[in-house]
Amino acid sequence: MKPCREDEAAAAAAGDPWKECFEVAVQLALRAGQIIRKALTEEKCVSTKTSAADLVTETDHLVEDLIISELQTRFPSHRFIAEESAASGAKCVLTASPTWIIDPIDGTCNFVHRFPTVAVSIGFAVNQELEFGVIYHCTEERLYTGRCGRGAFCNGQRLQASRETDLSKALVLTEIGPKRDPATLKLFLSNMERLLHAKAHGVRVIGSSTLALCHLAAGAADAYYQFGLHCWDLAAATVIIREAGGIVMDTSGGPLDLMSCRVVAAGTQEMAVLIAQALQTINYGRDDGK
Amino acid sequence: MKPCREDEAAAAAAGDPWKECFEVAVQLALRAGQIIRKALTEEKCVSTKTSAADLVTETDHLVEDLIISELQTRFPSHRFIAEESAASGAKCVLTASPTWIIDPIDGTCNFVHRFPTVAVSIGFAVNQELEFGVIYHCTEERLYTGRCGRGAFCNGQRLQASRETDLSKALVLTEIGPKRDPATLKLFLSNMERLLHAKAHGVRVIGSSTLALCHLAAGAADAYYQFGLHCWDLAAATVIIREAGGIVMDTSGGPLDLMSCRVVAAGTQEMAVLIAQALQTINYGRDDGK
Repeated sequence: MKPCREDEAAAAAAGDPWKECFEVAVQLALRAGQIIRKALTEEKCVSTKTSAADLVTETDHLVEDLIISELQTRFPSHRFIAEESAASGAKCVLTASPTWIIDPIDGTCNFVHRFPTVAVSIGFAVNQELEFGVIYHCTEERLYTGRCGRGAFCNGQRLQASRETDLSKALVLTEIGPKRDPATLKLFLSNMERLLHAKAHGVRVIGSSTLALCHLAAGAADAYYQFGLHCWDLAAATVIIREAGGIVMDTSGGPLDLMSCRVVAAGTQEMAVLIAQALQTINYGRDDGK
Repeated sequence: MKPCREDEAAAAAAGDPWKECFEVAVQLALRAGQIIRKALTEEKCVSTKTSAADLVTETDHLVEDLIISELQTRFPSHRFIAEESAASGAKCVLTASPTWIIDPIDGTCNFVHRFPTVAVSIGFAVNQELEFGVIYHCTEERLYTGRCGRGAFCNGQRLQASRETDLSKALVLTEIGPKRDPATLKLFLSNMERLLHAKAHGVRVIGSSTLALCHLAAGAADAYYQFGLHCWDLAAATVIIREAGGIVMDTSGGPLDLMSCRVVAAGTQEMAVLIAQALQTINYGRDDGK
């Protein structure tokens, strides 16, 4: 593949400067998904990272290397933040440069167990603003996309987030997070207890932050919260949710901070605020180490 | 459809007396799935049953009535235990007669929220022994079947449960259950905490007991436990898990009691015993009121 400078220039002139990047992201997510689907059926070599529950496989590395090497060839000036590179010590710094934010396999623990809730997530930011997100639910072959100002879709069908504002009618999604020390677990379970006491219809834990956020964008759940996720879990999904009419904010109720390792998302502002108010904070530090 | 007495006699003579019943169950599960998929996209009239989290819709009733009326016409001497009939006061008694055990929509709360984890479950018992189970995951179009002594399959592919015996390498599934009083919630969360302390890789809550049990049969999870499920959540899945080489037992570690509203299932006996030993009992009474 050669850098298509003429196409880029034409798209920019038409007010759509990141069209080519978006189309490349879609193709790479589908290719990565094929690799992951095949690997799901094979034996895996599993290693741990920050805890016994924080897993990585050869396929995570293979898929991340594939995506980054293709993008580097095509867009040599662009920067990258990616899960396995970060685990190997690469810094997570979001500058004004066009930046790809990549999770090669979201739901690695599910992947290891062949539990069919596994996704590739590719987000893209310019001037520290998210421009588009592409998420591919590999096993169910569902492609979620969102482009800033151009709507959110799943396999071509437009997404609309829930309009629910009443917590007692809400389906809420969350994830356990990688820390499993007794104090963190107590806080995680206490937050779940608070939402169930508030009579939420139910709480679901599916093992993939990215896909939980896609369900939220699709209106299949009313709220999501998590402590201990990363910018690569959030970047692509944030564009998709916002373009589906949903809200993504900090657990304090303030604006989202992509590097803060925590999030509340909901179909409505009212629901997001109710969730934020119910939560106790779990401290996970920051992706950018600030 | 007319009762096919000649076919029945031929199948019985060939040592396969419930072949026709099984084939009718498959056809009815697929038809019910079509109705549920269509209804997923429409507005729903939702009512509550035993708690604010125990929901029922017109589609639950419609699908249950369809399945039972078809089966009654075809097999007039057979008996029925079914979720919505039981909620309306019908007794859950498993006699020696051929008995259909039916959940028209497992995951009604998911169904109400359009969360795509919803199934039809049809089990069949004779002489109080489970003969076959048919479960249809409507949105993903996955048909799980198990026939006593004839294996378990998903869309024609043979299922094999996990062979994991080490709890620290296990993916464990559970469900919250319908009771939401503070004491029950404390026990539910305490059981989850015990498994996470034991360093299980993860705990998942997907909102459908039946589909969680299908994941177990498929080897996509290593263990499942729940207090507060019913015989119609368990009947079909139990055959499928056993035919996939898995174990279904009581939470006390003793033999499964289909009417006891509690269960542990696992790929191996060792794992099932570890889970049973870790759990505190939550009392939900019995389906047969004994």
